[in-house]
Amino acid sequence: MSQGQAAMRAALQAYVDRMNTGDAGGLCALFAADAVIEDPVGSPLKKGDEIKRWFEEAVAFGARITPVAPIRGSHDNAAALAFEVEFTPTDGQRLRIRSIDVCRFDAAGLIVSLQAYWGAEDVELA
Amino acid sequence: MSQGQAAMRAALQAYVDRMNTGDAGGLCALFAADAVIEDPVGSPLKKGDEIKRWFEEAVAFGARITPVAPIRGSHDNAAALAFEVEFTPTDGQRLRIRSIDVCRFDAAGLIVSLQAYWGAEDVELA
Repeated sequence: MSQGQAAMRAALQAYVDRMNTGDAGGLCALFAADAVIEDPVGSPLKKGDEIKRWFEEAVAFGARITPVAPIRGSHDNAAALAFEVEFTPTDGQRLRIRSIDVCRFDAAGLIVSLQAYWGAEDVELA
Repeated sequence: MSQGQAAMRAALQAYVDRMNTGDAGGLCALFAADAVIEDPVGSPLKKGDEIKRWFEEAVAFGARITPVAPIRGSHDNAAALAFEVEFTPTDGQRLRIRSIDVCRFDAAGLIVSLQAYWGAEDVELA
């Protein structure tokens, strides 16, 4: 496996592992300083401190990710992960979202963009 | 389900079904005239007659797609599918590729772009 492809897969696996251990700082550390998150695709972009707060909220909501297929690479600086995530919003019922996340990486192996494909129909009670 | 989201999911299901019945013309009919295919991500874009020839080749290779998770929508004009595809290249052994395809759609529900995320490590003997 090329070094870049292996590094991207390792980063996406770390994304899963750090979410599942509630490591918001570790999640932020996977992203470049100028990274953008579009989760879901079609929603406003998150940047900088918005990303930090978003991961802190996800951890507070007890988010747990279950991959549903092996991480996919590419022939470029991109990789993709199909998964389900469960979380409990404040004062709400536990939910499950079926998502596919696509990430682009910089030369240092940090995520520069994350796009999460899920629609209203991909959300259900967990 | 919104009409657009339902139409995109139906188009991706038709992509699976038409591949699996060897319907190259039906596959092409899912795409807008100016559509571009990047399969895999990082390879040269295919357009127009290249797309037609590519689907004819896929059918000749006996390509069969197995989705590995429900189709994902979005909050925009995009949807995504995680799948495995098996095919037999000319004079070759049958192969399996693990891919995630992301598609953008026009207002008529036709695919305007398809990006397939798979790397060399996502290819194996079937």
